[in-house]
Amino acid sequence: MHELRKDPLMNRWIAVMSDSMPPGEYHLQEEEAKESECILCSGREKETPPEITAIRGNGSNPNEPGWLARVIPSFKPILHVEGDLGRRGVGMYDRMNSIGANEIIIETPEHNKSTEFERMIRVVSLYKERIADLEKDLRLRYILIYKNSGREAGAVYSHPHSQLIATPIIPRRIKEELDGAKQYYSYKERCIFCDIIREELRYGQRVIFETKKFIAFCPYAQRSSFEFRIIPKRHSCAFQEINSEEIEDLALMLSAMLKKLGAILKNPPYNYVIHTAPNMIPRRDHWHTLGEDFHWHIEVMPRLTRVSGFEWGSGFYVITTSPEDAAKYLREA
Amino acid sequence: MHELRKDPLMNRWIAVMSDSMPPGEYHLQEEEAKESECILCSGREKETPPEITAIRGNGSNPNEPGWLARVIPSFKPILHVEGDLGRRGVGMYDRMNSIGANEIIIETPEHNKSTEFERMIRVVSLYKERIADLEKDLRLRYILIYKNSGREAGAVYSHPHSQLIATPIIPRRIKEELDGAKQYYSYKERCIFCDIIREELRYGQRVIFETKKFIAFCPYAQRSSFEFRIIPKRHSCAFQEINSEEIEDLALMLSAMLKKLGAILKNPPYNYVIHTAPNMIPRRDHWHTLGEDFHWHIEVMPRLTRVSGFEWGSGFYVITTSPEDAAKYLREA
Repeated sequence: MHELRKDPLMNRWIAVMSDSMPPGEYHLQEEEAKESECILCSGREKETPPEITAIRGNGSNPNEPGWLARVIPSFKPILHVEGDLGRRGVGMYDRMNSIGANEIIIETPEHNKSTEFERMIRVVSLYKERIADLEKDLRLRYILIYKNSGREAGAVYSHPHSQLIATPIIPRRIKEELDGAKQYYSYKERCIFCDIIREELRYGQRVIFETKKFIAFCPYAQRSSFEFRIIPKRHSCAFQEINSEEIEDLALMLSAMLKKLGAILKNPPYNYVIHTAPNMIPRRDHWHTLGEDFHWHIEVMPRLTRVSGFEWGSGFYVITTSPEDAAKYLREA
Repeated sequence: MHELRKDPLMNRWIAVMSDSMPPGEYHLQEEEAKESECILCSGREKETPPEITAIRGNGSNPNEPGWLARVIPSFKPILHVEGDLGRRGVGMYDRMNSIGANEIIIETPEHNKSTEFERMIRVVSLYKERIADLEKDLRLRYILIYKNSGREAGAVYSHPHSQLIATPIIPRRIKEELDGAKQYYSYKERCIFCDIIREELRYGQRVIFETKKFIAFCPYAQRSSFEFRIIPKRHSCAFQEINSEEIEDLALMLSAMLKKLGAILKNPPYNYVIHTAPNMIPRRDHWHTLGEDFHWHIEVMPRLTRVSGFEWGSGFYVITTSPEDAAKYLREA
């Protein structure tokens, strides 16, 4: 079985696969599967693991064509639902079993359709449904939804899809955000994200697009040029508390912003992630503040440059197009 | 002038260039310059910025051929030596001037020579000389030495070279290591790195290579398969305190390890970084512990897979070849 290990210096958990890949099998230039070989397309349902849920047209049956959006377990999961956590020490180090879930959200039955407004409503609804279902499992601490689009952004399939990973730990990057938000809250007694929304709306030059319920902007200090955030105006720590009006509004926002990004950067590889609050157990631990000091949001990052030893070794980034200019290009697209 | 900005949530500083690059100028597939066009080769000294220091053969003059290793300022520096820090607030955010230095350490006059033992002694000596010189500037808080080898690892030149960046802030990744080491020290009253060295030597299966003064091993929980660390057995927080016997020993270790890496992974793109203690000012601040709780080391990472939205958004990594197996492959190469 795969295992999770903790870096004692960085307090970072990572997963180590049990069946080690030999050095000759690493190929950085590996291609995505062609359309004719795509296993996520409609018509190949019997070749995927059985579906977890789907949004289907009238009268169609599970694991048969007729779906509009579909969720399946990963073909090669890193984390598994069965078993206990098995936390224990190994010499001076710490490990646990790789409990959790990996799922693929197939956004459309057709291979070459982009995820436009109507389709995006289904996708966002499935995100909500899967988080709400998985958070009932008390072994799981965090559910991360993310999207890889394009080979350079780590996508294995060229078919429109997002992914979900549910982990028995709070991933380090999330923990850092929670800690940062808590620190700000304890000093200011206000949510840092609510303050950022007000500051960005006041200043205006980094705002790209505004809907009734959401705002998209380039952050003041970002990690990558043309990176942007989408954030709900209503304070809420948990993505799954999104209501139906907000689902429609977010679908509009997300599809419009991805279209803008594609237009000015010629369909670049990109990633997005939803950063929501951790699951039940830690939320109960921090009951007195966590709901107030954290605010869910989406981070979208086009992959325009390569991470060098400098960024990797320092966590310091160089932005070649200022957030103000990037916002202007995106606003006008 | 370029500026440094701070992310208020993550406490991360980044640099924003003053002359924004338009979206059409991003090309992920850009090629490295060919050998015939290489500006770092011997014979083109007049076309580079004037050299800062060099190791030269008998009788040769600065900025002329005859050098064995050479340090020059970057062609397009992100940070500049002139000026004051100019720390101030902008609305709710924080910024400062981009004070600092960017340098290129050219490791050999010939384009296609790898950095073997004799050459590596010169390179390591220049690392020491540059850090020792720059740390005298009291505006600078940190000096990072790193190497990008191969286009996929962010290298702009194919000529053997390393880089240096001196910053007026402690980069986030370094701060995290300092904090982690301090936390361990305050609990155990021992250096975590010294403990890791003892644990790895006791267990043995992750050790790759041992010299009189250094040990190379795959860490228990790493961020990338085949990543390894090189660490001095003698406790020392600052790289520049390395003595001449250790310089020779490190040159032997580093050239042998890079040869092993090249052999088993067919000359993969890779990065390395030297993590040393911050400069004078913060060292004086933490005088009572910092010298004891931090231990300089080198992190070497081959670039075998692409970072996806998952790693980028979570800080959680999946290792496809276990550290124990990776160490075995490297040990036997």
